[in-house]
Amino acid sequence: MKNGIFIEPLHAPPTFRRKFEIVERKGVGHPDTICDLVMNEISVELSKLYIKETGMVQHHNLDKALLAAGQSENRFGGGKTLKPIKLILGDRATFAQDGHTFPVGEVVTRAAIAWFEENLRFVEKEHLELQFEIGTAASELRSIFADQSRGMAANDTSALVGYAPVTTTETAVLETERHLNSREFKSEFPESGEDIKVMALRNNDMLELTIAMAFVDRYVDSERHYFKRKEEMLRAITEFHRQKSYFDKINITINNLDREGIGMEGTYLTVLGTSADSSDSGQVGRGNRVNRLISLMRPAGSEAAAGKNPVSHIGKIYNVLCFKLAEEIHKNIDGLEEVFVWMYNTIGNQIDSPKAIIVQPLSADGRVTSQAEKEIQEILKDNLANINSLCGDLVSGKVKLA
Amino acid sequence: MKNGIFIEPLHAPPTFRRKFEIVERKGVGHPDTICDLVMNEISVELSKLYIKETGMVQHHNLDKALLAAGQSENRFGGGKTLKPIKLILGDRATFAQDGHTFPVGEVVTRAAIAWFEENLRFVEKEHLELQFEIGTAASELRSIFADQSRGMAANDTSALVGYAPVTTTETAVLETERHLNSREFKSEFPESGEDIKVMALRNNDMLELTIAMAFVDRYVDSERHYFKRKEEMLRAITEFHRQKSYFDKINITINNLDREGIGMEGTYLTVLGTSADSSDSGQVGRGNRVNRLISLMRPAGSEAAAGKNPVSHIGKIYNVLCFKLAEEIHKNIDGLEEVFVWMYNTIGNQIDSPKAIIVQPLSADGRVTSQAEKEIQEILKDNLANINSLCGDLVSGKVKLA
Amino acid sequence: MKNGIFIEPLHAPPTFRRKFEIVERKGVGHPDTICDLVMNEISVELSKLYIKETGMVQHHNLDKALLAAGQSENRFGGGKTLKPIKLILGDRATFAQDGHTFPVGEVVTRAAIAWFEENLRFVEKEHLELQFEIGTAASELRSIFADQSRGMAANDTSALVGYAPVTTTETAVLETERHLNSREFKSEFPESGEDIKVMALRNNDMLELTIAMAFVDRYVDSERHYFKRKEEMLRAITEFHRQKSYFDKINITINNLDREGIGMEGTYLTVLGTSADSSDSGQVGRGNRVNRLISLMRPAGSEAAAGKNPVSHIGKIYNVLCFKLAEEIHKNIDGLEEVFVWMYNTIGNQIDSPKAIIVQPLSADGRVTSQAEKEIQEILKDNLANINSLCGDLVSGKVKLA
Amino acid sequence: MKNGIFIEPLHAPPTFRRKFEIVERKGVGHPDTICDLVMNEISVELSKLYIKETGMVQHHNLDKALLAAGQSENRFGGGKTLKPIKLILGDRATFAQDGHTFPVGEVVTRAAIAWFEENLRFVEKEHLELQFEIGTAASELRSIFADQSRGMAANDTSALVGYAPVTTTETAVLETERHLNSREFKSEFPESGEDIKVMALRNNDMLELTIAMAFVDRYVDSERHYFKRKEEMLRAITEFHRQKSYFDKINITINNLDREGIGMEGTYLTVLGTSADSSDSGQVGRGNRVNRLISLMRPAGSEAAAGKNPVSHIGKIYNVLCFKLAEEIHKNIDGLEEVFVWMYNTIGNQIDSPKAIIVQPLSADGRVTSQAEKEIQEILKDNLANINSLCGDLVSGKVKLA
Repeated sequence: MKNGIFIEPLHAPPTFRRKFEIVERKGVGHPDTICDLVMNEISVELSKLYIKETGMVQHHNLDKALLAAGQSENRFGGGKTLKPIKLILGDRATFAQDGHTFPVGEVVTRAAIAWFEENLRFVEKEHLELQFEIGTAASELRSIFADQSRGMAANDTSALVGYAPVTTTETAVLETERHLNSREFKSEFPESGEDIKVMALRNNDMLELTIAMAFVDRYVDSERHYFKRKEEMLRAITEFHRQKSYFDKINITINNLDREGIGMEGTYLTVLGTSADSSDSGQVGRGNRVNRLISLMRPAGSEAAAGKNPVSHIGKIYNVLCFKLAEEIHKNIDGLEEVFVWMYNTIGNQIDSPKAIIVQPLSADGRVTSQAEKEIQEILKDNLANINSLCGDLVSGKVKLA
Repeated sequence: MKNGIFIEPLHAPPTFRRKFEIVERKGVGHPDTICDLVMNEISVELSKLYIKETGMVQHHNLDKALLAAGQSENRFGGGKTLKPIKLILGDRATFAQDGHTFPVGEVVTRAAIAWFEENLRFVEKEHLELQFEIGTAASELRSIFADQSRGMAANDTSALVGYAPVTTTETAVLETERHLNSREFKSEFPESGEDIKVMALRNNDMLELTIAMAFVDRYVDSERHYFKRKEEMLRAITEFHRQKSYFDKINITINNLDREGIGMEGTYLTVLGTSADSSDSGQVGRGNRVNRLISLMRPAGSEAAAGKNPVSHIGKIYNVLCFKLAEEIHKNIDGLEEVFVWMYNTIGNQIDSPKAIIVQPLSADGRVTSQAEKEIQEILKDNLANINSLCGDLVSGKVKLA
Repeated sequence: MKNGIFIEPLHAPPTFRRKFEIVERKGVGHPDTICDLVMNEISVELSKLYIKETGMVQHHNLDKALLAAGQSENRFGGGKTLKPIKLILGDRATFAQDGHTFPVGEVVTRAAIAWFEENLRFVEKEHLELQFEIGTAASELRSIFADQSRGMAANDTSALVGYAPVTTTETAVLETERHLNSREFKSEFPESGEDIKVMALRNNDMLELTIAMAFVDRYVDSERHYFKRKEEMLRAITEFHRQKSYFDKINITINNLDREGIGMEGTYLTVLGTSADSSDSGQVGRGNRVNRLISLMRPAGSEAAAGKNPVSHIGKIYNVLCFKLAEEIHKNIDGLEEVFVWMYNTIGNQIDSPKAIIVQPLSADGRVTSQAEKEIQEILKDNLANINSLCGDLVSGKVKLA
Repeated sequence: MKNGIFIEPLHAPPTFRRKFEIVERKGVGHPDTICDLVMNEISVELSKLYIKETGMVQHHNLDKALLAAGQSENRFGGGKTLKPIKLILGDRATFAQDGHTFPVGEVVTRAAIAWFEENLRFVEKEHLELQFEIGTAASELRSIFADQSRGMAANDTSALVGYAPVTTTETAVLETERHLNSREFKSEFPESGEDIKVMALRNNDMLELTIAMAFVDRYVDSERHYFKRKEEMLRAITEFHRQKSYFDKINITINNLDREGIGMEGTYLTVLGTSADSSDSGQVGRGNRVNRLISLMRPAGSEAAAGKNPVSHIGKIYNVLCFKLAEEIHKNIDGLEEVFVWMYNTIGNQIDSPKAIIVQPLSADGRVTSQAEKEIQEILKDNLANINSLCGDLVSGKVKLA
């Protein structure tokens, strides 16, 4: 098979026109999201260091982490953390290359602590135990970086996918979490922790939203207070949705496991605003995809983007690029209800000439015009030609990944 | 929304009729698969212990692990491992309940070591470093187990999906890996390690198979020997495919990054038959789905099944059940080209009455008869009524999960 | 044997009159000293917390730690740390008691990081990896604390020893390290790291001082610079000794392994001023005794004091008390050239009534008067009566322990 | 100061003639002894490997370990282990040298597991969690090994001491533990665990023996059974001492913290025969010295011998050699009541020409004849000439070190 671009018009109902849709988002304080965002932040900081020291990003692959929950004891009015949250950081980086050495340990530790202190109101360095499991990058893979004269080669065989447009359900889920974790909401409801999971099931035009939200026990005086504030939050979220008008019919539940009348056992309290302080562990690549959602009825690529290096790992680059391509195609080509873009490449092959790009447009009649095909080709060509610019945005951390 | 069963016929081309398909399988010795299989084996052994001691499975959730690659040095004729493979085992189990205590540490360690010794020819206990990060299960979740009189309640809010039929591409990928890791193949090609990744891109009726296979250096005398044996393997795999006749046109590549003439650097050698001995790390839930494949163009559920408890975690139970339902529906209902089955439930709700089951049949005319709908309802009802029997198969480890 | 006080006059030459004496001190930045001081600081902070919350110190025993050296690469002008220093913190504390819970994790982590940042100029939180291995205290031992009505009981069977007076060799060693780690010296010689080991062999009236001192590579421009500054330091130390007049004849060596003319290999450089950044590991109880020295020709108790709880662990309390008793006896009783004081108790016995106190006075004639015996008894009695006050000084961290 | 031999006759009462003596031994199953013996066994196995592969021992220093107690729950009739014993193994070894690579990870892990399975009846691999913290040896220290043409150089500055003769108290303590951990005793009293600590206080001719002994709960049916068996053991130990006739007056206590009538809380039970299964942690160098005892009233060297390399680390070699020298001198020279031998050397100096050997003989008149001096010189000279043979015994593991 020659490297190529393939366009396969699909005659199928677009996602937003299907009767059902299931979409999930794990908020910033969810253990899986923590893993994704911390590891990606580390990759960003390390990339900057590599560039500063050597003019280019060196090989690294930091898409492995395990957050092992700490131990804490909740109390109304404020509980205590007993054992720290342990974040185990993997997996490979370049420690030395061509006469340069890199203070990987420092950069990683500083970036990780900083991430927590900036993103989670109640997690400080004294709540954290960082285990450093970052080893030296294999020479086979480092060699991909060494020989950049002929362009950068892919350091894995992978296939990724992106799509457009975003559905209303997806928007509703993403915006709900953003709202719940916004400065305004936290100011009105400080008892709302950053560990929030929003799950939506759309049944035709009706949305069922199931929200899991860790409460911060220092702001909750009693069981009664807990349920009162939950009721008030529910009203606030309902009002938010009324204003946004995503759906007319909406049913919202918070903390489904709660049971009134049995004291603390019947509530969802945490000390630090995240279940990571005591009960829930996390990993990289187990939460949101690069569209910041888990859009369950859509296909998903095989790769976790967070923490991968932004110049040779197509599991990161194509992941983001596929969404960008789909958005541009959908925006610029008339008559496309939905479009899926797949990118596939094999290890060692140049990243700017993938083995295959498969574009699957969905139109009302299941066809695309030859003019549209030409425009699609153009969009793909332009983006491949500018892939370094996208890599640059990944290096700088401009692109959010979870 | 009331709990319910929804049937949404889709007018769309079934997967096997689309022009492109991308399917991957990470073999038994791949670091991600190792994590999945070890953690699930531990869950199985622990479940058996719980049943033996208390008559029921106790709460546990072992779907987190991080394998940090060891360090080794390859040599033609046999290299050496310098540092052990570190497997970090998370995350929660029940250590004591109702006057019973459970030797969790022993069971976990024994099961993990046994798994390696049984499944990977060259990994022995002396190559392993096990880090035990299994904490005590949260009381909120343990309570789900305590009150089983009213049936078992879901311990997470999740949506899962299964589908049928299996496509030829999927079969080809799964069988290729099984063949490469079969006793016969290993006997003919002992230099073939267990760490095998098979990636397939189907373009219409043409299959491109990209295989990554760790060679075992003790059986490889020289660079020349390596490439000779690789050539012979390629012929053997080609012959296997010729006999199986999955596809007429097939293009197979092994170890795409290899370069002849530069010595060991240009080959893919390992000491223990897995890249875990030196370069590649892994996690739970990052490899194969419960159909043992990564079928990239199909939707995927939001949950890693491996290691989850088999009686309350719908992320495991529904994961398997959705595939079973899809297979039964596809087999029993005439005229269905393909079917997708979704199950959705919220935490605390009974596992045998999910909030929603969504069946999406694909037929040539985009419709299903009312008779077919009735039969589908029947199949769902039967399976929900017998969900305990499925759980039993998960407890016993009868169902392979990765 | 009844609990009792025994006086055994010894007819033997006092230490300072012997022909030979060997004394060592591991400075504040030595990996063993780091372990001692950090763990003791943690014990102090935890004790304060326990008192604040419950009015009394709760059981803990933190006399176990392992510092695993990091990895760094030295350069003239400033090298880099590649992997963090890992400090593994053991072993037991009380996390909850009588309805109180204690944020052990936070206190431990905060105290450890603070210790480094205050005591070692170049070690910051980003150079550290803290591994928390502190478990829950055994109930058998916690019970010692629960029942304090009858006074505190010893939580181990141990024998400790102290002695007086300090010899000139001991003073010279202690003061040499204090001088080398003083603000003044560091200001004049910033290239002198905190990791300093002073070993002295006194042969009659001649002192051989062997100093190992980690240089801080950012202040060392070249091999030549290194040897020049070492020469200048040597002169400064010689001048210090000339002023102090400890010994007329003195021979001082710095970094005995150095070899000129082979570049960096022949020097002793570190990035952070401590060999912990790359080569030397440490443990609790392997360095200085509670007199802050390793006085090799004197007997030593069987216990590491650092990190032990200050109210029931006689391995800490008696360790300090024995030296205090010896000093008071030596100071107050005429004619004693030297005195050794031993304290022995068994687990479960009250700390203020040890099974045995053995006082070994050395006088010119090998005897003590009955008046002296009476005064010794008085001193012992007073100190036992005020043992809580000593414990208070240990709780507050007033007493330096390594 | 020139390298030299110094003889300083001391006019002082020998240890055995003093009124008091305190001697301790931590038995084979004590957490500190476990650390010592495991790490030394690892050093022995690694040394054998180095010799086999390269003809010589390569640099290593494995005298750091931290055993973090597991977690278990005791029951009369047999409790359970919940979490494994974690043994953290430090600190440095040579992984590669001169084209050879060494499977350090395998050797270490295999030796550690084997040690437990051979020495502690109830600890198997499934009770263990091994954490590998062994880094690469520093090149400065490796260089000591590289240049062996001029003999081996010391890789630390240290002073060590040995003495003779062994006192009756020391013999009694050592033999008591050996008896309690003998096959015969274990066969009669299987409930006696390997974790035994013997503490002796000799007051003139009276011995007070305080024994702490972990009971194995599977062999103890009830509180009553526990105290009955303890009584029977006490009788057996008393009978052992009666036969040995070490002392006429002897007072023996077992498990001083026991209290009858309060159930399990008042007993000292373990699941695995060592307190390491649940409560007590350990370290290298915190237990027995190389005479296998803690002879508290004698001076002690500054070094832990266990785990150090047997060809250049004088902290191991001199530690053993000092005792050997003292024994030979005491045995061969008439009229010596006791003798202490000190060896001192500085890093980089040849191990067979120490900077100083100080011999301190104690005779009735505080003198030694010139003939005796000559014979002492002879003994020292012979032993230094044959130091390689001693190193050979250390390499082979023939010498017991804790």
